[in-house]
Amino acid sequence: MESIIAPESNLLEETLEKWLLELKFKNLLNAAPVESVPVGDSMGRITARPAVALLSSPHFYSASVDGIAISSSRTFGINHQTPLRAKLGKEAFYVDTGTPIPDGCDAVVPIELVDPISIEEVEISQFCPPWDNVRPPGEEVSATEVILPAFHRIRAMDIGALFQGGLSKVEVFKKPRVGILPLGSGLIPPGVAMQQGKMIETTSHILSSMIKQWQGEPVLLNIIPESLEDLIKSAEKNISSLDLLLIISGPSQGTRLPAYFLKLKGDLITYGVQVKPGMSTCLGLLQGTPVIGLPNYAMSALLMTEIFALPVIYKKIGMGEPRRKSVSAYFSQPLRSPEGVDEFIRVAVGNVGKIPVATPLSRGADVLMSLVRADGILRIAPSRKLIKTGDVVEVYLLRPHGDLNKKLFLSGSHDIVFDILRSYLQLEYPDVSFFSSNIGSVRGVMSLQAGYSHISQIRIFDDESGEYNIPFIKKFLYDTPLILVNLFHRSLGFLVQPGNPKNIKSFSDLTRHDVKMVNRIRGSGTRMLLDYHLKQKGIEPGKLRGYENETHNHLNLASAVASHNADVGLGILPSAKALKLDFIPMLEERMDLVIPKKFINIYPVTSFLSLLKSAKFKEEVEALGGYSTRDTGKILFEI
Amino acid sequence: MESIIAPESNLLEETLEKWLLELKFKNLLNAAPVESVPVGDSMGRITARPAVALLSSPHFYSASVDGIAISSSRTFGINHQTPLRAKLGKEAFYVDTGTPIPDGCDAVVPIELVDPISIEEVEISQFCPPWDNVRPPGEEVSATEVILPAFHRIRAMDIGALFQGGLSKVEVFKKPRVGILPLGSGLIPPGVAMQQGKMIETTSHILSSMIKQWQGEPVLLNIIPESLEDLIKSAEKNISSLDLLLIISGPSQGTRLPAYFLKLKGDLITYGVQVKPGMSTCLGLLQGTPVIGLPNYAMSALLMTEIFALPVIYKKIGMGEPRRKSVSAYFSQPLRSPEGVDEFIRVAVGNVGKIPVATPLSRGADVLMSLVRADGILRIAPSRKLIKTGDVVEVYLLRPHGDLNKKLFLSGSHDIVFDILRSYLQLEYPDVSFFSSNIGSVRGVMSLQAGYSHISQIRIFDDESGEYNIPFIKKFLYDTPLILVNLFHRSLGFLVQPGNPKNIKSFSDLTRHDVKMVNRIRGSGTRMLLDYHLKQKGIEPGKLRGYENETHNHLNLASAVASHNADVGLGILPSAKALKLDFIPMLEERMDLVIPKKFINIYPVTSFLSLLKSAKFKEEVEALGGYSTRDTGKILFEI
Repeated sequence: MESIIAPESNLLEETLEKWLLELKFKNLLNAAPVESVPVGDSMGRITARPAVALLSSPHFYSASVDGIAISSSRTFGINHQTPLRAKLGKEAFYVDTGTPIPDGCDAVVPIELVDPISIEEVEISQFCPPWDNVRPPGEEVSATEVILPAFHRIRAMDIGALFQGGLSKVEVFKKPRVGILPLGSGLIPPGVAMQQGKMIETTSHILSSMIKQWQGEPVLLNIIPESLEDLIKSAEKNISSLDLLLIISGPSQGTRLPAYFLKLKGDLITYGVQVKPGMSTCLGLLQGTPVIGLPNYAMSALLMTEIFALPVIYKKIGMGEPRRKSVSAYFSQPLRSPEGVDEFIRVAVGNVGKIPVATPLSRGADVLMSLVRADGILRIAPSRKLIKTGDVVEVYLLRPHGDLNKKLFLSGSHDIVFDILRSYLQLEYPDVSFFSSNIGSVRGVMSLQAGYSHISQIRIFDDESGEYNIPFIKKFLYDTPLILVNLFHRSLGFLVQPGNPKNIKSFSDLTRHDVKMVNRIRGSGTRMLLDYHLKQKGIEPGKLRGYENETHNHLNLASAVASHNADVGLGILPSAKALKLDFIPMLEERMDLVIPKKFINIYPVTSFLSLLKSAKFKEEVEALGGYSTRDTGKILFEI
Repeated sequence: MESIIAPESNLLEETLEKWLLELKFKNLLNAAPVESVPVGDSMGRITARPAVALLSSPHFYSASVDGIAISSSRTFGINHQTPLRAKLGKEAFYVDTGTPIPDGCDAVVPIELVDPISIEEVEISQFCPPWDNVRPPGEEVSATEVILPAFHRIRAMDIGALFQGGLSKVEVFKKPRVGILPLGSGLIPPGVAMQQGKMIETTSHILSSMIKQWQGEPVLLNIIPESLEDLIKSAEKNISSLDLLLIISGPSQGTRLPAYFLKLKGDLITYGVQVKPGMSTCLGLLQGTPVIGLPNYAMSALLMTEIFALPVIYKKIGMGEPRRKSVSAYFSQPLRSPEGVDEFIRVAVGNVGKIPVATPLSRGADVLMSLVRADGILRIAPSRKLIKTGDVVEVYLLRPHGDLNKKLFLSGSHDIVFDILRSYLQLEYPDVSFFSSNIGSVRGVMSLQAGYSHISQIRIFDDESGEYNIPFIKKFLYDTPLILVNLFHRSLGFLVQPGNPKNIKSFSDLTRHDVKMVNRIRGSGTRMLLDYHLKQKGIEPGKLRGYENETHNHLNLASAVASHNADVGLGILPSAKALKLDFIPMLEERMDLVIPKKFINIYPVTSFLSLLKSAKFKEEVEALGGYSTRDTGKILFEI
């Protein structure tokens, strides 16, 4: 296919404009057909025509207070000296709020102004003007009155008003049917037993949920292999019942397949957009129905669907495009972006003190979890090559704006305890969330110093004093008022295959030719400690097999051993247990938290600190095995 | 009941605090039970426990590019002079993005760096470091990793991530079951044929839709009469299956029934809150289940449900309370509020030029339509007695914030044509909405002058020149750059019973003793014209029966005739047709629009003006009967 079709380099904005113009020109953005739905089921739907009241409500003159209905003319000139006596059931009638006014009456005297003389007569001593305390017919809604205009998204109170106007059904736009067709030979649907080398297809389910939110009707089509024949068969079979078809490309050759297919069997409008992630997007028509060929990765597919499919759906149901809420924030680290390309970057966003901060998350289009954890998305314009630390950026929010004040930024060393902390934090303070930049202890402290995090978790062993953390702080943070709070002590040890088949028991065993290790990333506390002990024992790191193979966290390290890609790694007991590896204890280390004093009394930080004193939290940490909370929450040092 | 129970005067904030403390103390705010739901159906639900990955994804080392998998050690030291030749299927293996790396390989050379020599051999001439272009297992998500924390509202991408972690179900909080029990003898459910003197019960349906949005499960109970026996029967029958019961009071005696019932059969915590609307709210417990007695009117019931029920529901599903978006705006007219009471006022909100403006809508708790049309709700603190024109107020939005720039404020004379304009506006500019203050021509122009509206619709007859609008503008708006644009001419005439049984044909017929008229409000153009013609003919208004009976719009005027409360009113043909009345043409009048020049080029105004030129709009106006669009859209005068 390569020689037949190649992506172009179209700018995003121009492509979008071309796409929508082309569809408009072909009358494909016209309003969707209308359907009549029961009012009770119409929440969130969009009215296709004005909803007009069939009944007046109330449909009669009614009392607006509890009291006595009378003819107002009888009250002219009365007072306490010369009150009016009126016969009940003839001249005066007890009425309740909302009940009809009897014939011959045109006013209601409130019950507290009525003096009951007997069961037959009442006395009134105040003038009551005509129509006083009387609601006219149609005060609530008049027949033929427009209750809801067309193109209105139906809310809770609208449902009440429609019912009140005597409507039992309301005319709304039919939900546009959006087909979602995933390509990929190595994909299996969720819920099917995992097979070796296969991946679970999830992108179609994400898109489906998005389309439901947009008032479209998603139609999940079966996963098909990355083959032109299968694509033709499935697309042509389904296209006539759809208003829009999304084809999710396969991971490799499949990338070009949707564009090639459209060129061959439909009309290819454009292929290749200068947007990262999402370059391989193609747009076209098949038998008069719009088709979008989406990139393979979830993040790209999601973004391109929001950019190219959402306007099509919204035009069809007469909605203006929703604008995501955005916020200005300081960017916490330098970031390069290719010129001439719109780039979308996932970020964590929150206020550090009074400063809004955005921190980039993983950039790969392929990591779905980083999208789940993201608070927002940053769009970098094609003309921008570099964002510097401290630059102000505009971030589109994926969460409510109010969450900015409830975000806690941590930076430093990674530990599984943070997952427990996260759960307990959300149990006790469900509104608070935290983002931990797992950038190692040293860079974590640098980020704290620059004002981009509230707390830095450090685990820095000082090889002169043999002490953790305090020497480092004394040396580098002596002019920052801060406290150092213990988080935990934990055992570090060798993670090895079950039964320790290679009998690895000491650091010198790492030098053996039949032993291949896996390492943690440079700058991490574990790495520093390893290097210190290797040095103490006079072992040359270059001689260790696999020393250069770095992993970003403990689970990845354990993963490497569990998958037999390494025999051993220095790590922690919970990771060993999680992946059913053996653990040979070697050392104990200490993780502390550095917190500037200016933050210790502000809300999300206070919630975090109070958590450290929770007995249940400590229990759960100890239950991990290899952890000690004997000093957890204790202030070990302050400046 | 009166002597047995009377409402207290509790402040809103204190009552809320007492209520939540009481429930907390009785363990009634504890988390709801947990249920397991299919991931695909979990959108919007709240996780009850952390969702932990069962599988690593990918669960193998995989290629991150298309290319050739090899052992990296084979590439040490190679270059273009001394390339590596590798045997396919033995030393080198074609791999696609995402597919597993064969045993013995630890790197992938991208396809564009591979020189295919034959079908058996490839040549590589660049060093490829270990793990280059290889994704480790668990890069997407590692087994045991927390995918979603507890207390997280599930979004589209979360569904993808859960599937990717191998989960097919997710543990969420059960939706709290909220019973809704409407009281009222004169109420019938929607969809039942209307009976004389009955009202459609709609409040329970509004509450039901709100509770669904809040992730609760509404349980609509049958409407019961306002009787203690019926209330006991229904409440006691249902209470055990509910987490919360809302009782909607009846309109009159029913107001005190829920409080009386709770005092008698349950625990009454409080009755009577200083909040308007909503004073008669009561709070209590029945058999250990929280019960809220709501006021009768929809607006009050809705507000009190949001204030007292929402926190209960949200605590049970572990959510922080949602905060409504708010906006600061200038208040467009003076408003008094009772001291010592929290008052909630419905408002229209939008930007007039660059000035955010809020205008109060109808204040009665009973008018549902004004809630439907409201853009926001203003809360007036107990200590505040008066809001002055121009005061800055904080308004809670009922619509998206972006809609502020799409709101058009009109003020002046009412006409049914504005309903047509509204529909066409939303057809052509679905994002624009307008609010028309129907305050009559003169007050409309005053509001425009003060900067609280974009456009003023006027219909002011000058009895010296016999001309419409221009004399008034010359006299009062001579220093304001503006344009006067014609909207329409229309016939005014007498609305009478079908067949004109009283043979009303001239203004002098209004003086007859057997003729009772209904009037429009003082300051309205119709009223001015009527007064002019009465004066011309020497008729004394005081002599006309019903002259003092004023209605706020044409439909209400027609309604009064149709319901036989008047024999005649001066009005317009469409209202006559709508309510099947006869129409006797008498006069022609002219409605124009006054638009300050500073607004004529800003967006919502331009959309409105362009609409006046639409042939379809004109056709529909003419089709109303009695209207002429011969000058519609024409500029008649400018300053």
